[in-house]
Amino acid sequence: MGTMHNPLVPETLEGWGLLHLLYRIRWELVREQDDLAAIAAEAARVLAPADGEGSTTWVQMLGHKADLMVVCMRKGFEGLAQAQLAISRSALGDLLELTTSYVSVVELGMYDMTAKIHEQLGAKFKPGSDEFEQAFDAEMETQRGRVMSRLFLDVPRGRYVCFYPMDKRRGETFNWYAETFEKRAAMMREHGMIGRHYAGKVTQVISGSIGFDDWEWGVDLFADDPLVFKKLIYEMRFDEASARYAEFGPFYTGLQFSASQLGELLAGRVPALLG
Amino acid sequence: MGTMHNPLVPETLEGWGLLHLLYRIRWELVREQDDLAAIAAEAARVLAPADGEGSTTWVQMLGHKADLMVVCMRKGFEGLAQAQLAISRSALGDLLELTTSYVSVVELGMYDMTAKIHEQLGAKFKPGSDEFEQAFDAEMETQRGRVMSRLFLDVPRGRYVCFYPMDKRRGETFNWYAETFEKRAAMMREHGMIGRHYAGKVTQVISGSIGFDDWEWGVDLFADDPLVFKKLIYEMRFDEASARYAEFGPFYTGLQFSASQLGELLAGRVPALLG
Amino acid sequence: MGTMHNPLVPETLEGWGLLHLLYRIRWELVREQDDLAAIAAEAARVLAPADGEGSTTWVQMLGHKADLMVVCMRKGFEGLAQAQLAISRSALGDLLELTTSYVSVVELGMYDMTAKIHEQLGAKFKPGSDEFEQAFDAEMETQRGRVMSRLFLDVPRGRYVCFYPMDKRRGETFNWYAETFEKRAAMMREHGMIGRHYAGKVTQVISGSIGFDDWEWGVDLFADDPLVFKKLIYEMRFDEASARYAEFGPFYTGLQFSASQLGELLAGRVPALLG
Amino acid sequence: MGTMHNPLVPETLEGWGLLHLLYRIRWELVREQDDLAAIAAEAARVLAPADGEGSTTWVQMLGHKADLMVVCMRKGFEGLAQAQLAISRSALGDLLELTTSYVSVVELGMYDMTAKIHEQLGAKFKPGSDEFEQAFDAEMETQRGRVMSRLFLDVPRGRYVCFYPMDKRRGETFNWYAETFEKRAAMMREHGMIGRHYAGKVTQVISGSIGFDDWEWGVDLFADDPLVFKKLIYEMRFDEASARYAEFGPFYTGLQFSASQLGELLAGRVPALLG
Amino acid sequence: MGTMHNPLVPETLEGWGLLHLLYRIRWELVREQDDLAAIAAEAARVLAPADGEGSTTWVQMLGHKADLMVVCMRKGFEGLAQAQLAISRSALGDLLELTTSYVSVVELGMYDMTAKIHEQLGAKFKPGSDEFEQAFDAEMETQRGRVMSRLFLDVPRGRYVCFYPMDKRRGETFNWYAETFEKRAAMMREHGMIGRHYAGKVTQVISGSIGFDDWEWGVDLFADDPLVFKKLIYEMRFDEASARYAEFGPFYTGLQFSASQLGELLAGRVPALLG
Repeated sequence: MGTMHNPLVPETLEGWGLLHLLYRIRWELVREQDDLAAIAAEAARVLAPADGEGSTTWVQMLGHKADLMVVCMRKGFEGLAQAQLAISRSALGDLLELTTSYVSVVELGMYDMTAKIHEQLGAKFKPGSDEFEQAFDAEMETQRGRVMSRLFLDVPRGRYVCFYPMDKRRGETFNWYAETFEKRAAMMREHGMIGRHYAGKVTQVISGSIGFDDWEWGVDLFADDPLVFKKLIYEMRFDEASARYAEFGPFYTGLQFSASQLGELLAGRVPALLG
Repeated sequence: MGTMHNPLVPETLEGWGLLHLLYRIRWELVREQDDLAAIAAEAARVLAPADGEGSTTWVQMLGHKADLMVVCMRKGFEGLAQAQLAISRSALGDLLELTTSYVSVVELGMYDMTAKIHEQLGAKFKPGSDEFEQAFDAEMETQRGRVMSRLFLDVPRGRYVCFYPMDKRRGETFNWYAETFEKRAAMMREHGMIGRHYAGKVTQVISGSIGFDDWEWGVDLFADDPLVFKKLIYEMRFDEASARYAEFGPFYTGLQFSASQLGELLAGRVPALLG
Repeated sequence: MGTMHNPLVPETLEGWGLLHLLYRIRWELVREQDDLAAIAAEAARVLAPADGEGSTTWVQMLGHKADLMVVCMRKGFEGLAQAQLAISRSALGDLLELTTSYVSVVELGMYDMTAKIHEQLGAKFKPGSDEFEQAFDAEMETQRGRVMSRLFLDVPRGRYVCFYPMDKRRGETFNWYAETFEKRAAMMREHGMIGRHYAGKVTQVISGSIGFDDWEWGVDLFADDPLVFKKLIYEMRFDEASARYAEFGPFYTGLQFSASQLGELLAGRVPALLG
Repeated sequence: MGTMHNPLVPETLEGWGLLHLLYRIRWELVREQDDLAAIAAEAARVLAPADGEGSTTWVQMLGHKADLMVVCMRKGFEGLAQAQLAISRSALGDLLELTTSYVSVVELGMYDMTAKIHEQLGAKFKPGSDEFEQAFDAEMETQRGRVMSRLFLDVPRGRYVCFYPMDKRRGETFNWYAETFEKRAAMMREHGMIGRHYAGKVTQVISGSIGFDDWEWGVDLFADDPLVFKKLIYEMRFDEASARYAEFGPFYTGLQFSASQLGELLAGRVPALLG
Repeated sequence: MGTMHNPLVPETLEGWGLLHLLYRIRWELVREQDDLAAIAAEAARVLAPADGEGSTTWVQMLGHKADLMVVCMRKGFEGLAQAQLAISRSALGDLLELTTSYVSVVELGMYDMTAKIHEQLGAKFKPGSDEFEQAFDAEMETQRGRVMSRLFLDVPRGRYVCFYPMDKRRGETFNWYAETFEKRAAMMREHGMIGRHYAGKVTQVISGSIGFDDWEWGVDLFADDPLVFKKLIYEMRFDEASARYAEFGPFYTGLQFSASQLGELLAGRVPALLG
């Protein structure tokens, strides 16, 4: 028998496993290498997944937190474990220091859908009954099919990348997890509205990390103008879901580039995001 | 004379001593080794306890916090001290950097049982009297016998492992330790209900660490699908015990593997959990 | 179609991309160098942007957080990425350890202007209509032209530099982002008044970092007498915007010097800010 | 003229200066040594104080925080400074990395006594008068003589050691230092009662560190069964002094051993606490 | 025109620039040196300021935070920058690791004086008028002359040193910067009273660090008996200014010694504070 569908909890759908690996480059070792191109080519090759098995995103970072961010999207944790091992054991690995990371799974939160299904099925079946639970599972499976391309997405094209983790607050006065489902759903709707005004300018990938890493969600933003990150996040900070209930982790920002340009970065030239 | 049984405090029963050791692998040193198989074999051997003396769990970790987690279950702290020394002095030890750890003891919390015994014995004896205390101790010893296999358990088989420490909050408004026994017991009962819906999908090991480490409890989860960790912990976050009173430490996640597969990990191949 | 102008959110105008890089000097390596002057000259050269492309500020720091701060002002993040790479790959780079950094964009917050435009255009057009949004954009573009020299400023001349990041608090009682626009505007006006009393004594550069770094804003102050920093910030701490709503990050302080004096610093002599 | 006796402040009596030094052992260096026994013998010798000058306690630690804890009890800070220098300059010092430490002074807090003296002397003399102050000092000196053996104690024998620092909270609602003397004294009395139930099972050494280190007090517990630490601290967590007002620092736990057994530890064998 | 005198803000007077530099000694390198006396002599010489230009205080520290604290008092930040460079470039510098530091300026806070001047001048001139401001400046200059020896003090002689930074709290209930000037002045008066009872036993140097470092003030205490630090700070913790409004940073403690004794420390002998 499956897990019961708890009416307090928004249903979620999950896609790619996601592993953000942030590295400092040991430039003093890079300088000593004879063949940077070969080192870069090997790293790009061992990090390139087979067709349909995911993707690897390369990002040159700004600031001291990291010089290089590698974002691995894979089917499940086996694929993530394999990717991390591959880079650790590559020649590039010896030129890097892993400074931080993030483990999560692409996630679509379904506040509105959850409420709708509970209501519709609740009219037909006794909540918690086997019939109810089976119909619920079937409906979720249908939803899952509908959003498959968002769960197992291609990496968005934007030149600029912003990554940060976040939590919903559990303060003594404002506690997200103690609010009613309806109040939370309404706040998420308002929050989503703001995002929609930025459609076409920024692409966002939300991933869930409860049970996997220190924050509850990871957010990746992609855009062709980095100022859009600031405008979007600043505007959202005034909606109730963020103003009262969001807790933000560190922010990481950088420039996405093509795997074939990794050698450029090592050689000290800003790598490009090719056609 | 023994310690008095304080009616504010839930009784606990204790089993294996537990030592989580999390290591970063120094891959640049691994590459230089001639005989990784011998190094792995020695480490597996010195960490294997005698029959009935406990067990050692090996986990390949995701992310920067650790590459390898070794979980030692032993009879008492002497056994834990011996295990930590054994790995420190092994050849593998020189290829590792101990990044974090956790010291605890397998613990069963007995909220319902404690209330029941206080009530039953309180009807017969004066609370705090020698008769009361002796009957209480005897009853706890009976309980202990009943749950022996959960106190001195075998390592659960799940391929995926999630570990995190946690506290009960002592906030200025919501303070777990200032709530009545009855309110705490009711919250723990609700909390346990949710866990029961995941029976068969996830196995949990709770250990107590008050007096031993920086958080009050450690939680290990084992499952064959890592998404179950996320679903379970997310759902629990909405119950009152968690929403209002839980404080979570860092989360660690990885893949359990067989001791004989350690050489695979060092060689850069994801190690398997063998039959 | 552009983003809507949300009346809760003060409009901002952006200028130079800004990258603060803070380094510890590895003095034990400096001592071993034969030609410090050549190392310094190369670093100064690769960090000097082309005309109109920005500037680089050099600061000798006090205390353990850093020996050297390099502040890069560039057009956009490509320029910042190029600057960071240039120093990382220079001979100086091998003598440095990047201890911390800050990524931001020069920003003018427009509380009063935002309110005025909303009011004026709201009288003519339906807020949120295409006409309203276009007129709003046009008006902002006019403002932008007016303050161009403050968005793309020259580095202020002051010998002493103070840098710190800050947030507006989102406490359970005092939450900046949950206050009305009018209340926030009034507090910012009072805050600005105090700053104006220090005109001529201190020059301030505000940069926005929401989405880029861990705090919401960065503040750089320049003065010829470092006591002015203490007087100004202490006085401001009593205004409501700071007393109730400001959260301050670490403070960094040092002495600005001319790029051509970098060799002096390496040689152990306090470098000067030349004519 | 001496300091006035402030009726808000409980009097304290002080004994040994106390320095906890926690070290990680550099096992990769240990393996290279020819004569571990000589290194161990030298360390034990230079850390052994003259008769009556204090003592040195050796503890093998569990987990990553430290491999070895050395607790020096000495007469005053000169003795502590000498002890720290001795180990730093010994051959053992080169095999160690000092990861953390704690500076404090053995302290007996005298809540009940303070109240009693204020009352008794207040009936005879004007509080704050010279007569009052002199009589107070004389009475404290008498008390000091009475508890001399607890101020300058021998190291308790228990095999297991638990050390942690703590504060009394100064929250916005629950602020220990803003409570009346009477309320604090009553809470300390309740707190002490619980401790007394564990007499014979655990020995506790309280030391004061206000002005010396980052927490207000250090607590060392010694026992022959480490579960007693968990039982005791868990039970105390429900008393008001702890539930509402205690803030706990990190917890350190390990196994006490005899100085002559140090070579065993270095050789990879759990050292014993000899007869 | 000068800065206006804001009646919410207590006036301050400033003296020496102050730089606390805390170092770990790399003992494994010290052991390899041939001529420790020469290294010590050079360091003492380059850190000795010219007559009237300030002073350098040497302190052997207890615990892991630092082995050595060097406190530089100089005229302005140029002198501090020069001092830090001098030690970094000395032979001693290569044996040290700078673990932490503090940048501040000797400060006398003038709560009572500020109130008095505002009142007296307010009776004669319109507050904020040029006459008022000029008279205020003149009065402050007079005060400055009066306390010159406390602003540009000699290093107090005490054998024991305690240093810690602190803030005034800005909590949601208790917010120092939101209290009236009168309430703050009254609390500072009560706070000062306690300090006065310790006159002759302890000497305190307050320095301001708003705008310079991460806390608002630094406090140095000097005494011939370290227990006085504990007694004083414990007693103060019960006054309202501390109990409700003080936030304390880390505490550092050690033994002051004469510059000529630095070689003793390196040689492993506790250095003395000579006549």
